[in-house]
Amino acid sequence: MKDTDMYIPTYQDMLDAHERIRPHIRRTPVRTSDYLNELTGAELFFKCENFQEPGAFKVRGATNAVFGLSEDQAAKGVATHSSGNHASCLSYAAMLRGIPCNVVMPHTAPQAKKDTVRRYGGKITECEPSTSSREATFAKVQEETGGDFVHPYNDPRVIAGQGTCSKELIEQTDGLDMVVAPIGGGGMISGTCLTLATLAPETKVIAAEPEQADDAYRSFKAGHIIADDAPKTVADGLLVPLKDLTWHFVKNHVSDILTASDPEIVDAMKLTWKHLRVVMEPSSAVPLATILKNPNVFKGKRVGVIITGGNVDLDRLPWMKG
Amino acid sequence: MKDTDMYIPTYQDMLDAHERIRPHIRRTPVRTSDYLNELTGAELFFKCENFQEPGAFKVRGATNAVFGLSEDQAAKGVATHSSGNHASCLSYAAMLRGIPCNVVMPHTAPQAKKDTVRRYGGKITECEPSTSSREATFAKVQEETGGDFVHPYNDPRVIAGQGTCSKELIEQTDGLDMVVAPIGGGGMISGTCLTLATLAPETKVIAAEPEQADDAYRSFKAGHIIADDAPKTVADGLLVPLKDLTWHFVKNHVSDILTASDPEIVDAMKLTWKHLRVVMEPSSAVPLATILKNPNVFKGKRVGVIITGGNVDLDRLPWMKG
Repeated sequence: MKDTDMYIPTYQDMLDAHERIRPHIRRTPVRTSDYLNELTGAELFFKCENFQEPGAFKVRGATNAVFGLSEDQAAKGVATHSSGNHASCLSYAAMLRGIPCNVVMPHTAPQAKKDTVRRYGGKITECEPSTSSREATFAKVQEETGGDFVHPYNDPRVIAGQGTCSKELIEQTDGLDMVVAPIGGGGMISGTCLTLATLAPETKVIAAEPEQADDAYRSFKAGHIIADDAPKTVADGLLVPLKDLTWHFVKNHVSDILTASDPEIVDAMKLTWKHLRVVMEPSSAVPLATILKNPNVFKGKRVGVIITGGNVDLDRLPWMKG
Repeated sequence: MKDTDMYIPTYQDMLDAHERIRPHIRRTPVRTSDYLNELTGAELFFKCENFQEPGAFKVRGATNAVFGLSEDQAAKGVATHSSGNHASCLSYAAMLRGIPCNVVMPHTAPQAKKDTVRRYGGKITECEPSTSSREATFAKVQEETGGDFVHPYNDPRVIAGQGTCSKELIEQTDGLDMVVAPIGGGGMISGTCLTLATLAPETKVIAAEPEQADDAYRSFKAGHIIADDAPKTVADGLLVPLKDLTWHFVKNHVSDILTASDPEIVDAMKLTWKHLRVVMEPSSAVPLATILKNPNVFKGKRVGVIITGGNVDLDRLPWMKG
């Protein structure tokens, strides 16, 4: 693959990002559970990014992008298309700086997601739930507002921001054998690779993916990006495909990608709620599900696990169904 | 009231308890939420005792009692009657020291509670769900085992242990105007009073109680202990009445007792799950429910809130009913 068109963020970019965003994000705690350690035979360190104010690690990358803008650009604000945590985290970051944030979102997106974006002052422009409508709508919004496009993951500022999470995790623990994080578009995994390659090169990075949206797994095995056609999984934060920048990190730095089925993900989610007593999204349970499924990979190891987000509809928990 | 028969734990007892239990408990984090601060107009500091390994503050008092036993007494173990967090926390503490723990519990207690006690090595003797059966069964168990009786709350060792929670909370914050904690039997509130009376005498202690089990509120207003006859509330950790030792602290040190209805408690529970993203019991939501109900009491104040426990049946959440 040629990387000529893209800027690959560096370790220094991540360090700069951490200085930039430190006043605006939380240094989230690391939780442990004797019970889950016994169950897995590993020593697990859960980094609670669900405890960020807007409930997801994505506030790191969003804040880095927003606070890195020049005054001129900042006056025009930022824009993105997302119906997930990136939309609310970018709105939140823009609110902190006091600049506009425009979000293009399908009109079919859950009301709760729209409400959160609006609570943080984000302006929503609705589109049809199709790629063509989204792209046309977004182009129009960007032209009208001049807002800086902050992609949910395929953006060096975003990846550098997400990398600050692993920096804290390493600082908060005494060395880790591996770090496991969920993979969707690959922003968190890329940031993790970026940071650990320099800060803790002996620490392996393992990506965890839902079986029912295993495009990254298949890309990893095939050696080129494969995108799923409309995947469906309970881990609805992980539906999007890799892009060139995140593929660069996955291809070059990820040790392995492990997958888990939806029932395994839901079981792991309940286990975490019960024994860590934290509220997290199904997407955040994929790492523990893969750890439980592959005990020999993790037994006896010190394993960092990134709990990526905690925004979940309490009236529609996955185990309420059926 | 004459206090001649009882030993009132001192501030030094609490300090000794903290030294004794420190290796065995967690220094739980304090969480904040910009959203909940805006909603209440107060600055709220949530002390997450639900993050103790067995999921409740009661591990503090239980560990203090267990690790304070002489070797001779420890060999005979401990005993209690409880079907709640005290039973599992005492079993957990006894497991840590490697001594027997006998628990008398009605055969009607939820299977999950029995499973937890047994997981920690506690031995359950079942009784009928009546006071007379419980007392007779407990007397028999204690006679047979010689186990030291650790009352769930009316025990100076337990109160001194619970007081360590507020010591940490004060250390973790820069001064508080008030601390709000739920009140059932009064163990946590008594420990809070014990600690704050010396460490932060300007910090008020407010007890929060379910309207449907408001025996402490009525006792406080009447000036003597009133016990409810079989109260029923979603906050099922707060059903038991005050006893002489906890009444001593309530009567002399508590600034006020505020109450909230069951629907208000459930709303506050959901709000906390959603915005703090922690799993907590209905009992632990009573403080926030009273804060939301009495905004003028708390507006502009720095308020410590003790999240007492996080053991909840995920398949029977209160908002699933109906």
